Amino acid sequence: MYDLLIIGSGPAGISAALSAKARDLDFLWFGPRGLSSKITKAERVINYPGLPAVTGPEMRDAFLRQIDGLGIELREERVNSIYDMGGYYTAVVNDKMYDGRTVILAAGVSGSREIPGESRLLGKGVSYCATCDGELYRGKRIAVVCTDPGLEEEIEFLAGLAAEVFLCTSYKDCGVRRDNVRHVVGYPAEILGENRASGMVCGGETVEADGIFCLRPCVAPAALLPGLKAEDGHIQVDRQQRTNLLGCFAAGDCTGRPYQYAKAVGEGNVALHSAVEYLKKLEV
Amino acid sequence: MYDLLIIGSGPAGISAALSAKARDLDFLWFGPRGLSSKITKAERVINYPGLPAVTGPEMRDAFLRQIDGLGIELREERVNSIYDMGGYYTAVVNDKMYDGRTVILAAGVSGSREIPGESRLLGKGVSYCATCDGELYRGKRIAVVCTDPGLEEEIEFLAGLAAEVFLCTSYKDCGVRRDNVRHVVGYPAEILGENRASGMVCGGETVEADGIFCLRPCVAPAALLPGLKAEDGHIQVDRQQRTNLLGCFAAGDCTGRPYQYAKAVGEGNVALHSAVEYLKKLEV
Repeated sequence: MYDLLIIGSGPAGISAALSAKARDLDFLWFGPRGLSSKITKAERVINYPGLPAVTGPEMRDAFLRQIDGLGIELREERVNSIYDMGGYYTAVVNDKMYDGRTVILAAGVSGSREIPGESRLLGKGVSYCATCDGELYRGKRIAVVCTDPGLEEEIEFLAGLAAEVFLCTSYKDCGVRRDNVRHVVGYPAEILGENRASGMVCGGETVEADGIFCLRPCVAPAALLPGLKAEDGHIQVDRQQRTNLLGCFAAGDCTGRPYQYAKAVGEGNVALHSAVEYLKKLEV
Repeated sequence: MYDLLIIGSGPAGISAALSAKARDLDFLWFGPRGLSSKITKAERVINYPGLPAVTGPEMRDAFLRQIDGLGIELREERVNSIYDMGGYYTAVVNDKMYDGRTVILAAGVSGSREIPGESRLLGKGVSYCATCDGELYRGKRIAVVCTDPGLEEEIEFLAGLAAEVFLCTSYKDCGVRRDNVRHVVGYPAEILGENRASGMVCGGETVEADGIFCLRPCVAPAALLPGLKAEDGHIQVDRQQRTNLLGCFAAGDCTGRPYQYAKAVGEGNVALHSAVEYLKKLEV
């Protein structure tokens, strides 16, 4: 049982991890070493105190040097879901599980809007996790929605299992080339089905499917942690970054605008201090 | 009439000023170039993302280089009070006044507690501003409370006017040497007086005085801006850093714990974005 699980390696996660190290917590930190894809894409940031007029990659490198210099381990594992176990949290990474007394959610915000029907049919034929649910669709017909080229290996994995794949990407030049994959560029208008997903509408075309996979860099908050209170796609927090779940904190873009490095860094710090305070009370 | 007045040059003020520059606002920024005295005193900060294991002075220098590099002007004037003029704010600096449509308060938090009787007798013989009220006590007997050696020139100024000065400093080695100043080290137990201040109790000694000056690096929020809502010495803000006064925002230590650089930087950024949003609505 760890003191803390930090989910996400953007500025909010980095800030939380640096303070967790400073406070000597026993914690695990999950996220890609590329840090946030938004950081990497930033052309020039002039308003982050301490790093004058850095490009996104320069900022990422400065952050990585600092993390490595302190010997903080960043686990490049993708947390698919988190469960509130009543007193502690379990993060699921494919077939592994990690327990923490507290959790800080700092996995950013999905730029893409929810597809009509998506949340209603989640777990009923709609899945966010290729690794978790792919096997269910071996030899079947699936539809895949993908908003980030970084997730194409998950498409490859699914295409290796399924008989037919209807693939919608929100970007051009998708690198997936397989005979059983039919690709259109666009974002789905709807996921069909009453009690179970039965198909998808994309690019004016209606396609039948046994399962639908929505692959995005950030999972919608309430889908990541069932029971978490969110509004308009943002996790609801108070000034101490506390969510509606005891021992669960959130920081950065996932809690709302402005989507700014400084704001994320500040919230990561506050979330960590709230987690420390919460852990102290548990000891009493 | 400026778009914005930023009060304070600690991390919150710096963050607000950098973003104000990035958003091309017409703003004035007040505070000492030494930035925050807390920064300067910090031995080593390991948890601020972007500046690995810096000392306080190194952090201050990094911030100053960035500000100067962008040509942002920091006015080393001390704002004594701010008034809500109903639609805009006026900041008073000795005999000068500056108007702004919005204001961001980022002047830190006073480490010292309020003296019993202080707020009750404020404006009734108790003053926070040597320059504003000194003249009232020419040839009279005053008591002065000082918590920061950086404010000793204000004591000198007062001693040049008053006949007798009873001086309480919360620190040793006060540099003021004048025949009419009697110095004790300590923090006052009470300010005396019913409808008007009549004396002070410090170090077990009761001294009569016509006026009492409380000199601290940070003025208590509600004393700085009459009508501002505060609790336990902290300005009350929501997640957008809005205070109870329209167009007035606050950021950094003055809004509460944790007293952390990252938290202050984040709040300064958010306060600025809230000010921009407010200004946009004014234009409509």
